[in-house]
Amino acid sequence: MIQWHPKHIPIERSCSSAKKIQYAPYTILSGGFLLLIIIGAALLKLPVATYEPISWVQSFFTATSAVTVTGLVVVDTGSAFTLFGQLVIALLIQLGGLGLMTFAIVTLIALGGRIGFLEKVVAKEAFNQTDSSTLIATAKSVIIFALTVELVGMLILAMYWSDELGWQTSLFHGFFYTISAFNNAGFALSADSLIPYVSDPVVNITITALFIIGGLGFSVWIDIKRKKRWSKLTVYSRLMILGTIALNSVALIAIYLIEQDNPNTLANLSESGKWLAAWFQAVTPRTAGFNTLPIDQLEDSSTLMMLMLMFIGGGSMSTASGIKVVTFIVLLLATYSFLRRDEQVLAFNREISKESIKKALAITMISAGVTWLAVFLLLLTEHAPMLDILFEAVSALGTVGLSRGLTSQLTSQGEFIIIVLMFIGRVGPLTLAYILAAPRQKKLRFAETKIAIG
Amino acid sequence: MIQWHPKHIPIERSCSSAKKIQYAPYTILSGGFLLLIIIGAALLKLPVATYEPISWVQSFFTATSAVTVTGLVVVDTGSAFTLFGQLVIALLIQLGGLGLMTFAIVTLIALGGRIGFLEKVVAKEAFNQTDSSTLIATAKSVIIFALTVELVGMLILAMYWSDELGWQTSLFHGFFYTISAFNNAGFALSADSLIPYVSDPVVNITITALFIIGGLGFSVWIDIKRKKRWSKLTVYSRLMILGTIALNSVALIAIYLIEQDNPNTLANLSESGKWLAAWFQAVTPRTAGFNTLPIDQLEDSSTLMMLMLMFIGGGSMSTASGIKVVTFIVLLLATYSFLRRDEQVLAFNREISKESIKKALAITMISAGVTWLAVFLLLLTEHAPMLDILFEAVSALGTVGLSRGLTSQLTSQGEFIIIVLMFIGRVGPLTLAYILAAPRQKKLRFAETKIAIG
Ligand SMILES: [K+]
Ligand SMILES: [K+]
Repeated sequence: MIQWHPKHIPIERSCSSAKKIQYAPYTILSGGFLLLIIIGAALLKLPVATYEPISWVQSFFTATSAVTVTGLVVVDTGSAFTLFGQLVIALLIQLGGLGLMTFAIVTLIALGGRIGFLEKVVAKEAFNQTDSSTLIATAKSVIIFALTVELVGMLILAMYWSDELGWQTSLFHGFFYTISAFNNAGFALSADSLIPYVSDPVVNITITALFIIGGLGFSVWIDIKRKKRWSKLTVYSRLMILGTIALNSVALIAIYLIEQDNPNTLANLSESGKWLAAWFQAVTPRTAGFNTLPIDQLEDSSTLMMLMLMFIGGGSMSTASGIKVVTFIVLLLATYSFLRRDEQVLAFNREISKESIKKALAITMISAGVTWLAVFLLLLTEHAPMLDILFEAVSALGTVGLSRGLTSQLTSQGEFIIIVLMFIGRVGPLTLAYILAAPRQKKLRFAETKIAIG
Repeated sequence: MIQWHPKHIPIERSCSSAKKIQYAPYTILSGGFLLLIIIGAALLKLPVATYEPISWVQSFFTATSAVTVTGLVVVDTGSAFTLFGQLVIALLIQLGGLGLMTFAIVTLIALGGRIGFLEKVVAKEAFNQTDSSTLIATAKSVIIFALTVELVGMLILAMYWSDELGWQTSLFHGFFYTISAFNNAGFALSADSLIPYVSDPVVNITITALFIIGGLGFSVWIDIKRKKRWSKLTVYSRLMILGTIALNSVALIAIYLIEQDNPNTLANLSESGKWLAAWFQAVTPRTAGFNTLPIDQLEDSSTLMMLMLMFIGGGSMSTASGIKVVTFIVLLLATYSFLRRDEQVLAFNREISKESIKKALAITMISAGVTWLAVFLLLLTEHAPMLDILFEAVSALGTVGLSRGLTSQLTSQGEFIIIVLMFIGRVGPLTLAYILAAPRQKKLRFAETKIAIG
């Protein structure tokens, strides 16, 4: 069994080879996404992709938004892009969402080639598997699972829409919305997202089911399939499931209570419509990006709640982004354990490793720092209220795709900043920082000091 | 030598006595501040304290703002309060700023009484001293240092203002502004704070020197006095000094660059006036609370920078609040060390203890959580832009006292929320949480687990 963490790399390795191995997975991941974005942007710039020509910035923005499964749009997907353009977008979403890694492995298997050390490391990082022997099985499971769920979702939506749209269009809509929802992309075929279906139970339940399943993360589903019983699940899976239920429940009740008298959102809906709309808006910030209510009409307190949910995001190794639900839970548990003066941070009678806590701290600091810097820069380039800018930046970094309407009014500098945020958000703030920071082997141990904090 | 941390308390101690000792310092500190606020509110409610009667909420708000050295005001200190009222405010600031502990120890010394175990524990927490034999000397040093600096500041300001105001008034102004500045209270005798002195070098330099000296923290000054040389200073002192210089420099340059063309702030000032005003606004968020520019006229990007500076605050064991400069540095160092895959978090070739990192994480999480919750509640009670509310909440929790003008327009629920924030901000988010959380002795050790983060 090969251990990934560099402290397990034997000291006698030469520095340059150690470096190459350390950089490789992140470089490949980032490079792969970048390549996919460039190809996508070129395809979307083709005359056949749009009814009216779009600019390079617009095609790059759209390709980045699709590959990073964000869903922010500068041109309306439904009216600006042809069927070809929409297919390209759907393909970019699927490739981006499931990750290049899965496809790389499948390709290798299909070609009958051996998987080298490098690919194993890459895949291990992607699926968070520590046992490389189960890797190929895992990759297969992921693909089969994803395609099965998508097929079911597509059939439900296509059948449901067939009366309204005719079978050809409804099939394509079912295909497009399923891919967009399962991959938490949030791309819609109309400018008002799913607002027309605000009280529609079939659309609400199917779409939210798709993006919650996708956003929970494959590792949890694989774990459930293997272990069957709650007590046998990994600590990670249990934290993720409980965290998802807790966040969704709190958000549902808060949004219902806050918005019930707002005439621009819930007030004029039926009681069941109110709950459906509150539910949809409660779960979409993590990080689906569809909406059935006008986001800019929500009360500021709901908006603040959405900002927090978008920052947290979904599950690790999923189609969602953000700092991740379990990262947030680990921060809470570490705080709680400090207040109780516990030496260990516990979850389900297991200690959460110091390495995990450090990683949670690092990823949160970097995300907060990137968000702060982006908002600072956007305040210099855009003329818009701070809240709209903050919402846009958090949405882009969390690859959420919700907007208070700023996206279409961005300056070209603003568009560039959002493109960068979406890319960082998907590749992972930590991954990018890993690449930038030069790792070094420490030989000396230093004495410890306690210093005043707070 | 008595170790404070509960893991050093022998197991055979009975649970109830261990609990009593653990709770005591925090309970005493909070209780003392609360008592001082109640006495102060009662004094300020006396007819002799104000020209026109004020409400109980207003007197409580003013007393809390003074004791917690925040400086947010619902009634104008200069025109609403009589000389008696202003003296009460100055006294509350001085008592709140230097801490009740110092005065408790001094009183005990003066009475010739022995200092008991409990007082030692309290004082140790207050001054972060681990050697109880130097405690009384430390308390004396603090008092002498504070009074000396204040005397110098008062004489400079009184002499400078004597032509303008006459010697009696100038002496009182010098006294009031010195106490307010040194204790980072930010209370001014006119509604426009120090805006009339925006280009005045004497006022700018004296006031900022006073609040920077006060905000650096006594422990640093005591360390400098004892060690004399940079290399001999504690890691904490060196981090604090470098952090203060770095934050102030970055803020100075950023505010100068952003505001230089803003006609409502810097544009109409002379070149030296521009730098003085940029300097003042760069250093006041941590956490002095005076201003020489209209805060609500600053560009949003400057405002965002101020929000961050206010959240960070000043030095531990100082008259400043916030999460503290070194807490912020520790978070950055921990992130950096994780990215470099270092096992230890280092500063000046010393390892920062895991306990310190956990404490930094805990205090930041609690501060962020309290801020988020307060903004959420204020959005429900107030009708004001998110930015104004966020600024007010961060200012109150950091006991900064800067405002974009919301303070005087708060609803009574809003005033209550701000009162609570100022109290939490001064007593320390961690202290309050310590009191609330029930400590428990763990007997079992649990196995470690690594989980996916990010
Ligand atoms: K999305
Ligand atoms: K203050």
